[in-house]
Amino acid sequence: MKTINLVGYGNVGQHIANMFSHLTDFQLQAVYTRTPIEQENLPFENVLSLDEMPFADLTIISVKDDAIAEISTQLPYKDSLVVHTSGSQPMEILSSKNRKGVWYPLQTFSKEKTINYAEISFFLEVEYERDRQIIEHFTKSISSSYCFLNSQQRKQLHITAVFACNFVNHLWTISEDIASKNQIPFQFLHPLIKETVDKIQYLSPKQAQTGPAVRKDLTVIEKHLQTIENESYKEIYKLLTNSIIQTHEL
Amino acid sequence: MKTINLVGYGNVGQHIANMFSHLTDFQLQAVYTRTPIEQENLPFENVLSLDEMPFADLTIISVKDDAIAEISTQLPYKDSLVVHTSGSQPMEILSSKNRKGVWYPLQTFSKEKTINYAEISFFLEVEYERDRQIIEHFTKSISSSYCFLNSQQRKQLHITAVFACNFVNHLWTISEDIASKNQIPFQFLHPLIKETVDKIQYLSPKQAQTGPAVRKDLTVIEKHLQTIENESYKEIYKLLTNSIIQTHEL
Repeated sequence: MKTINLVGYGNVGQHIANMFSHLTDFQLQAVYTRTPIEQENLPFENVLSLDEMPFADLTIISVKDDAIAEISTQLPYKDSLVVHTSGSQPMEILSSKNRKGVWYPLQTFSKEKTINYAEISFFLEVEYERDRQIIEHFTKSISSSYCFLNSQQRKQLHITAVFACNFVNHLWTISEDIASKNQIPFQFLHPLIKETVDKIQYLSPKQAQTGPAVRKDLTVIEKHLQTIENESYKEIYKLLTNSIIQTHEL
Repeated sequence: MKTINLVGYGNVGQHIANMFSHLTDFQLQAVYTRTPIEQENLPFENVLSLDEMPFADLTIISVKDDAIAEISTQLPYKDSLVVHTSGSQPMEILSSKNRKGVWYPLQTFSKEKTINYAEISFFLEVEYERDRQIIEHFTKSISSSYCFLNSQQRKQLHITAVFACNFVNHLWTISEDIASKNQIPFQFLHPLIKETVDKIQYLSPKQAQTGPAVRKDLTVIEKHLQTIENESYKEIYKLLTNSIIQTHEL
């Protein structure tokens, strides 16, 4: 049984703590939080000062990006494996007193929505070759979707995730806004959205492209631009339409 | 048993013809195509000239937007219900010799991918109140997701669909492009994409927004902009980031 410490109990930290409920080879030993966790019969020790943190085989730091470096220096033990969970920070920001690594769960975590952890992709990095096994073993026990990336690749991955998730969700926000302003219940768009996603399980997104831009249907595009009232939405429509045309001309 | 004619057998037309396989109250009587359909034992008459089209209770015109008006004048019968399937064309473009209507299936149809027709939303419009019942009965026999919209609303709906489907798919194309340039298999982003969609079944897209822009994490945003090499992607990143910040400030 390997012991694991968790530092930070925010949105992502709480999801990480939940991942342990089914694990047999790994025990969540202690969680560091600045304020006590208000829940009875915690399955782990709730530590309120980093000094009290007991030694662990693996320590997961899940705090805001700009606090990672400082927190990693304050751990009271050394020569252990310490990973952070940030998509945008290099492994190097961790203190050298422990063996460095990254364990980045690529997912959009909301407190309001439970997640099937077996359906998360994890991106791993370790400073020392000998730590590959423990981080891989731990990750495998949660999900079969993982790969090792270096910090440079992870930086790019984080950008791909912003396009694939954050920006996509914003386009749905715009879509819902236009729908609601025209008394069209957004639920009627859900089947279209579901199929749009289903398609890219079978086709590459480039192959799956439909719509007036890829057809170069300038009449429809011009009509849409005349119809869109919000100037900011109009700019987005123009830029994405031109980008589709460019992409499919190459 | 009501009879239905289909005019046009392109991408959408073929999917419409397939929808009839399970219907008991409606029969696909004849399909007009410019060239013979190369398939044996067709369950309908394949008509190669519009003049030969037999009278039907409902005629569905599924041809290119700019051919709808002309085709509707060429039908050899009158005083029947004739609908088109275009999201961007008003009902009015149809010839007045028949009773006008619209039957718009909102979906992204690709020939390479089958679709569960019960999961399509249909948007209906009729010129005469008495035609509501037949178009509603016909639609209900395929899908429970439908509503009546006027031509003005449908025009807006088409724009919401471009944002929710076509533009979203393009962001995935960009995401895959960046991933592949950095040797990251795009399949690892599928769980994130799936969860992004699942979330908006429970939360509105606006509530579901995550990422650096909604957190106003200018450090990460600045780092991303320095990392993105493609100028066109950089413009899209900037515009969508600003739009997210604006939307969530209101």
